[in-house]
Amino acid sequence: MFMHNKRLQYTVRVAEPNPVLASLMLEQFGGPQGELAAAMRYFTQALSETDPGRKDMLFDIATEELSHLEIIGSIVAMLNKGIKGDLAEANMAEADLYAALNQGGDSHTQSLLYGGGPSLTNSSGVPWTAAYIDSIGDPTCDLRSNIAAESRAKIVYERLINVTDDPGIKDALGFLMTREIAHQKSFEKALYAIEPNFPPGKLPGKAEFADLYVNTSQGEGDTEGPWNAGGTWQRLDDVEGSLPLDGGDGLPSVTLTDAQQEAAQALAARTMSNPESDPVTGADLGSGKLAAEMADV
Amino acid sequence: MFMHNKRLQYTVRVAEPNPVLASLMLEQFGGPQGELAAAMRYFTQALSETDPGRKDMLFDIATEELSHLEIIGSIVAMLNKGIKGDLAEANMAEADLYAALNQGGDSHTQSLLYGGGPSLTNSSGVPWTAAYIDSIGDPTCDLRSNIAAESRAKIVYERLINVTDDPGIKDALGFLMTREIAHQKSFEKALYAIEPNFPPGKLPGKAEFADLYVNTSQGEGDTEGPWNAGGTWQRLDDVEGSLPLDGGDGLPSVTLTDAQQEAAQALAARTMSNPESDPVTGADLGSGKLAAEMADV
Amino acid sequence: MFMHNKRLQYTVRVAEPNPVLASLMLEQFGGPQGELAAAMRYFTQALSETDPGRKDMLFDIATEELSHLEIIGSIVAMLNKGIKGDLAEANMAEADLYAALNQGGDSHTQSLLYGGGPSLTNSSGVPWTAAYIDSIGDPTCDLRSNIAAESRAKIVYERLINVTDDPGIKDALGFLMTREIAHQKSFEKALYAIEPNFPPGKLPGKAEFADLYVNTSQGEGDTEGPWNAGGTWQRLDDVEGSLPLDGGDGLPSVTLTDAQQEAAQALAARTMSNPESDPVTGADLGSGKLAAEMADV
Amino acid sequence: MFMHNKRLQYTVRVAEPNPVLASLMLEQFGGPQGELAAAMRYFTQALSETDPGRKDMLFDIATEELSHLEIIGSIVAMLNKGIKGDLAEANMAEADLYAALNQGGDSHTQSLLYGGGPSLTNSSGVPWTAAYIDSIGDPTCDLRSNIAAESRAKIVYERLINVTDDPGIKDALGFLMTREIAHQKSFEKALYAIEPNFPPGKLPGKAEFADLYVNTSQGEGDTEGPWNAGGTWQRLDDVEGSLPLDGGDGLPSVTLTDAQQEAAQALAARTMSNPESDPVTGADLGSGKLAAEMADV
Amino acid sequence: MFMHNKRLQYTVRVAEPNPVLASLMLEQFGGPQGELAAAMRYFTQALSETDPGRKDMLFDIATEELSHLEIIGSIVAMLNKGIKGDLAEANMAEADLYAALNQGGDSHTQSLLYGGGPSLTNSSGVPWTAAYIDSIGDPTCDLRSNIAAESRAKIVYERLINVTDDPGIKDALGFLMTREIAHQKSFEKALYAIEPNFPPGKLPGKAEFADLYVNTSQGEGDTEGPWNAGGTWQRLDDVEGSLPLDGGDGLPSVTLTDAQQEAAQALAARTMSNPESDPVTGADLGSGKLAAEMADV
Amino acid sequence: MFMHNKRLQYTVRVAEPNPVLASLMLEQFGGPQGELAAAMRYFTQALSETDPGRKDMLFDIATEELSHLEIIGSIVAMLNKGIKGDLAEANMAEADLYAALNQGGDSHTQSLLYGGGPSLTNSSGVPWTAAYIDSIGDPTCDLRSNIAAESRAKIVYERLINVTDDPGIKDALGFLMTREIAHQKSFEKALYAIEPNFPPGKLPGKAEFADLYVNTSQGEGDTEGPWNAGGTWQRLDDVEGSLPLDGGDGLPSVTLTDAQQEAAQALAARTMSNPESDPVTGADLGSGKLAAEMADV
Repeated sequence: MFMHNKRLQYTVRVAEPNPVLASLMLEQFGGPQGELAAAMRYFTQALSETDPGRKDMLFDIATEELSHLEIIGSIVAMLNKGIKGDLAEANMAEADLYAALNQGGDSHTQSLLYGGGPSLTNSSGVPWTAAYIDSIGDPTCDLRSNIAAESRAKIVYERLINVTDDPGIKDALGFLMTREIAHQKSFEKALYAIEPNFPPGKLPGKAEFADLYVNTSQGEGDTEGPWNAGGTWQRLDDVEGSLPLDGGDGLPSVTLTDAQQEAAQALAARTMSNPESDPVTGADLGSGKLAAEMADV
Repeated sequence: MFMHNKRLQYTVRVAEPNPVLASLMLEQFGGPQGELAAAMRYFTQALSETDPGRKDMLFDIATEELSHLEIIGSIVAMLNKGIKGDLAEANMAEADLYAALNQGGDSHTQSLLYGGGPSLTNSSGVPWTAAYIDSIGDPTCDLRSNIAAESRAKIVYERLINVTDDPGIKDALGFLMTREIAHQKSFEKALYAIEPNFPPGKLPGKAEFADLYVNTSQGEGDTEGPWNAGGTWQRLDDVEGSLPLDGGDGLPSVTLTDAQQEAAQALAARTMSNPESDPVTGADLGSGKLAAEMADV
Repeated sequence: MFMHNKRLQYTVRVAEPNPVLASLMLEQFGGPQGELAAAMRYFTQALSETDPGRKDMLFDIATEELSHLEIIGSIVAMLNKGIKGDLAEANMAEADLYAALNQGGDSHTQSLLYGGGPSLTNSSGVPWTAAYIDSIGDPTCDLRSNIAAESRAKIVYERLINVTDDPGIKDALGFLMTREIAHQKSFEKALYAIEPNFPPGKLPGKAEFADLYVNTSQGEGDTEGPWNAGGTWQRLDDVEGSLPLDGGDGLPSVTLTDAQQEAAQALAARTMSNPESDPVTGADLGSGKLAAEMADV
Repeated sequence: MFMHNKRLQYTVRVAEPNPVLASLMLEQFGGPQGELAAAMRYFTQALSETDPGRKDMLFDIATEELSHLEIIGSIVAMLNKGIKGDLAEANMAEADLYAALNQGGDSHTQSLLYGGGPSLTNSSGVPWTAAYIDSIGDPTCDLRSNIAAESRAKIVYERLINVTDDPGIKDALGFLMTREIAHQKSFEKALYAIEPNFPPGKLPGKAEFADLYVNTSQGEGDTEGPWNAGGTWQRLDDVEGSLPLDGGDGLPSVTLTDAQQEAAQALAARTMSNPESDPVTGADLGSGKLAAEMADV
Repeated sequence: MFMHNKRLQYTVRVAEPNPVLASLMLEQFGGPQGELAAAMRYFTQALSETDPGRKDMLFDIATEELSHLEIIGSIVAMLNKGIKGDLAEANMAEADLYAALNQGGDSHTQSLLYGGGPSLTNSSGVPWTAAYIDSIGDPTCDLRSNIAAESRAKIVYERLINVTDDPGIKDALGFLMTREIAHQKSFEKALYAIEPNFPPGKLPGKAEFADLYVNTSQGEGDTEGPWNAGGTWQRLDDVEGSLPLDGGDGLPSVTLTDAQQEAAQALAARTMSNPESDPVTGADLGSGKLAAEMADV
Repeated sequence: MFMHNKRLQYTVRVAEPNPVLASLMLEQFGGPQGELAAAMRYFTQALSETDPGRKDMLFDIATEELSHLEIIGSIVAMLNKGIKGDLAEANMAEADLYAALNQGGDSHTQSLLYGGGPSLTNSSGVPWTAAYIDSIGDPTCDLRSNIAAESRAKIVYERLINVTDDPGIKDALGFLMTREIAHQKSFEKALYAIEPNFPPGKLPGKAEFADLYVNTSQGEGDTEGPWNAGGTWQRLDDVEGSLPLDGGDGLPSVTLTDAQQEAAQALAARTMSNPESDPVTGADLGSGKLAAEMADV
């Protein structure tokens, strides 16, 4: 069960209202790399996790991310506090309110639609979706996903720090950014405490294709590096000449019943595009070509 | 520029049509861990990448993933080939067609809406969305995301292999699964060829919070492991007693102008929920309580 | 800040695994009337709320809803526990696993894609979206929305109770359902503690249209009731004859500059559908009519 | 069946084109509180409603909301009429067109993508989705949802009125805003004409939890009011000490078959994160720490 | 303005309730080719249309499509009428209700979430989205889109007719299907009454590329037909040898300022994947290879 | 299988970075009429196509559209190249970066979230969705959809050309626009090479409704043209008087079992809105009316 204390994990001191900056900050509130995505990612993993150590860690970090959602949401609420009152009380001339809403970002949507509250959208106003969450219920995969997610969140905080000079916001964002580093470390430890963890899953794969590098993009710019050369890599350069890789005919096939066969043939016959035809088309009609020709007759 | 050869990278031999199995296979066609997501993830990274080695590798793998999209899509097309003709030609009694559509999965949608073609949806019929793609334009993050994505795709193929006994499909899925292992290796090499790559980005973070583990989830089940104990970890157990971590008051604040202040106060006064009141509510009306009381008067 | 205790607010005892029932239960996990929607609705309202009583209440209830999300998610995790192991360890014959996945609902997606973990989707597999949250930052509206949301959640729990005979699940769902009743009471009290609260907002509206009932749907079935007759209602039956209600011409208009006028006219001339023409169309070509006529010539 | 008259229900007189203002107005065309949402909410309820009075009322109001969709859409069309011609006829220098598109809001998208027509998006360009509609087929819930929806729409109109000084637009918006007040009154009457209407549904709930207020958010700011104190409220302050509320162990459980048990154990063993280990991690590699240590050896 | 008559445009007689069939029918209620999409497509075009003939026609057909939405929604409501009462009144044993919900399709979602009302989703439960609407405000394009949309809707009705043997439903669907044919004819006439209508828009295109067919897909299966051979077609077979088509270098370039250049170089240097390195990777750690090697030392 | 050459099909020369223009260009990268939509539309059709000529053509054009996706994505990458370095390296004062992000469009999102890479969103930041793809697996429909899609893409390119004066971008966009014209021609040929192709599908429709024009929108502005008058059109003006068109009662009906009947009646009785009542409502409470009345007593 969750409990809550109305004190934040980190103090938020905002110098002055700024709805456009609020709009940018939403990236970490309701955006794909934001705190709700983090919290839900770890919370849902925790629920089905049976390994006691990971389960505990996932609940710990999920709960902290919810607390970070509260911090970033509080920053947004403070930045919007001015426009919220102004709009609700019609506290400015219409033209001034109009101008205030249209300075940049999608601050107008936060004001008109959400009344200045922090909305679960990204900075473009796109509603948060669980499609952002990539957990699949295998710990070696989910921990890799978590590691990647923490590194992404770290960078988005870094970018937000770079675009504001409000010292209180910079300080709080710096805290949030640092915690992503710490969380990444925890997930790394938990991943490598599974031995072995590569390749993920139980099935080993077909040995003949596991060290193959297929050089599908060719022409100027072909480069070698440890990702495609050296070590155990086998490199395939004549891609087209090697099709298919299995020695078959490279075509898809399926066995139909006679009745299915018949229906398929009827369908094919009924809808054939006759390659021998030279049909007049709608584009011919529409370009006036046909009319011209008929006039010639 | 892309070119295409009508031969597949791997031959697809399907034993017999099965629209329900087709529906499951869509998970890797238009699902979040599927081949379109993979191809678009690497392709969009390639376009803005300036490091020549990574750019080449990303185009190589993106192009191969498109070719895998073609393979899994061909499997779906073969599995749906029977129902496609049957439905278009009304080749069965209505009741039989109805039964064929409603055996399981969302095969009915593929048939009714997409006419048996492979649809860019997951196995539940949810349309593919670019929200699945988590690239953020920083190579140390994007490579970690790619590593995680390849590991997830590997597992989903493993699960699909486990639910079918069609040998041709098992064989092709085995090939696709193995290629994810190879791709993960390439991305790992490219990540560790960036030195240093941790923490990501330029800003180092606040040292006092980078080795801190906050034990937010307590009670029975608290566990220690390398992810929260030993090494350089500092562990905070008295979470509530330490609020906030910065020594401030733990509250959000912002400085408003006088006019903003005034509007905020007017709004607060106008919309106060009076804690001293004991209002009759709609629920009182709706539960019949009020009527009863008034009758008593 | 949030804290967590690994004990649930209410014990969850599930009789036996059942992935199809798990799929139904997702309605209250990641569905529109589910617990994440409730928690996020109240949490985001709390962040921008300035009334101390409502802010406290919103944090209280938001935190409890997160704890309910944990309960319903735990039910899902228990119901999926069997299939999770079976699929990961390939513990059954392929045909049996295939059958287990395709019994009903969208249990296949939870298994294939989410590996048996509770997914933030509804029972059809549609990912949770913040579009479900209708907060707009005005307390009289948001409290009405909360009242409505609690009543809807109550009913969905009632329906879920009606479709299972597992006594442990029925018991836990009964608890969750009851809490929605209690929450609705709190929101009702907070709404009616704002006086006045109707009409919402500051602007009073145009008096001549505030008691008007427009009888736009006519014919058999026209009915009178307190919602459109009696009291202060004025009823408009001759809808078409009264157009427009303002005494103007009922047409939209805008004043363009000369240059805009000119461009608009050029556009109109260039794209006019000539009402005097009798064009041959693509459908004529496609139906073979034209060919027939030309053959006649 | 629906019929249509090309006269609007209320005359729309727009002073001059303004694509940025058009973008704001879209909030009530294709936004979550807009007229399409209202129309579809009531229309779909009407279709399955069997109570004759409510069915008639729902068709009446749905039809009027469609007519309001026409009014707000006409405002958008007028505001975009200038840019529509300018863009289609390339009627300005490129730089001027570019500037016109980028003044604010998302007017560029309406112009580029929708060619100046009113688009079914909100003011941020997010496409309308049926996820906005919260009908669940129980009249006491749906009427509460309708009441809440009307109150929200009223406020969004109030905000739009506050940001424009075009008198014709203000007049039409004032009409639309007033009609929301009237509709709310109708829905209130219809709700309270169901007796009793609280709690919704048939199941009464567990008496011991129906008057309980759980004080989950504590610390500074705890407040009492009629929503959590007085009357029949029982208040629980020692939340953590009372876990779980049912007297059980507060843990989720399920009974697995032996085979399921075995698979679950195999999975757990294979994927255990060993708490006794002290693994070298990818982050260690990536931070250069490992290289340094190995160099020391 | 819209008006409504409670009589349907066509009588709906359903033989017996069937929630699974209801689920299939939703394809034309809230699906991409369904009646809401049609109605909104034409209605939004009508609002910004200035050509009087097309504007009238678009309002005519939009209004009729709304009436068809009502017909198909009424079919759904009738098919769900049994389950609606059963579920709300708990009129069956739990196990029987459970079975009734899980027969096929997504009927469970319609029942649990929407309470048996017609929901604005497709047959897979995916909520309707305005992303289905492809209007762009150019009449020659929009009419082509409308023609295509009518033809698609015709086919989906044909498929639905093929899967039911309920004579009343077949009859009503036959009516709806036929109206799509009539609407397509109208749109065809309106398109070809614009002369010329091809190519759309004002800009003529680069003559050297307008008759070029690029044979990008080669290998077995290359075919000739009127779409790529004969007439004015020029065919390019040596695709790779002709890159790029403009005679440039085929590379993207941009001129940066010195400061931008410098930042770009700093970024490149900081994040280079060193092609000369042979790094140990996380996969090496995870596969146990590194440990083995170190043990060897 | 796909192959790739790192040379573009057409050279991209961008004069200078401009993230706002980049944001507009995204319309054709990840927008509904953009190149990914085109490529996926034709590619998925190709996979299930069995007609050899169409299959070849669809692969040819799909592959070329992927190559166009690469061109437009390269334009975006070049336009964002400046901001990418500036943001990653914190190469400007915070205030300058802030200003650069907030000039217009949604360039801030591309920078903050995607780090300057081309994102699969439209110009408003809405993620690409497969809901844009309208293929249904019938060739006469899909070819019509393709024709319409090509014409729309042509126009969006024309609009983009009109808003930039960068000659290199204009040149590349001109090439892309022209190719849409050529593709439309191919699809037209393939459609009309199916004979007959109208009406689509097998079922002929009900003859009595196939030439009927229903004049549902009346009043001022009624117009005649070849789309509703002349030829074989029958026109119905007395719409309301002709309801329903089939001679039935125009009402929906279904036959319930006795048990279903009973449950339906119980539900109706329990939830009736009593038309004879005059209930006090929440709005009465909230407007203070009730309090006033009770005070009067």
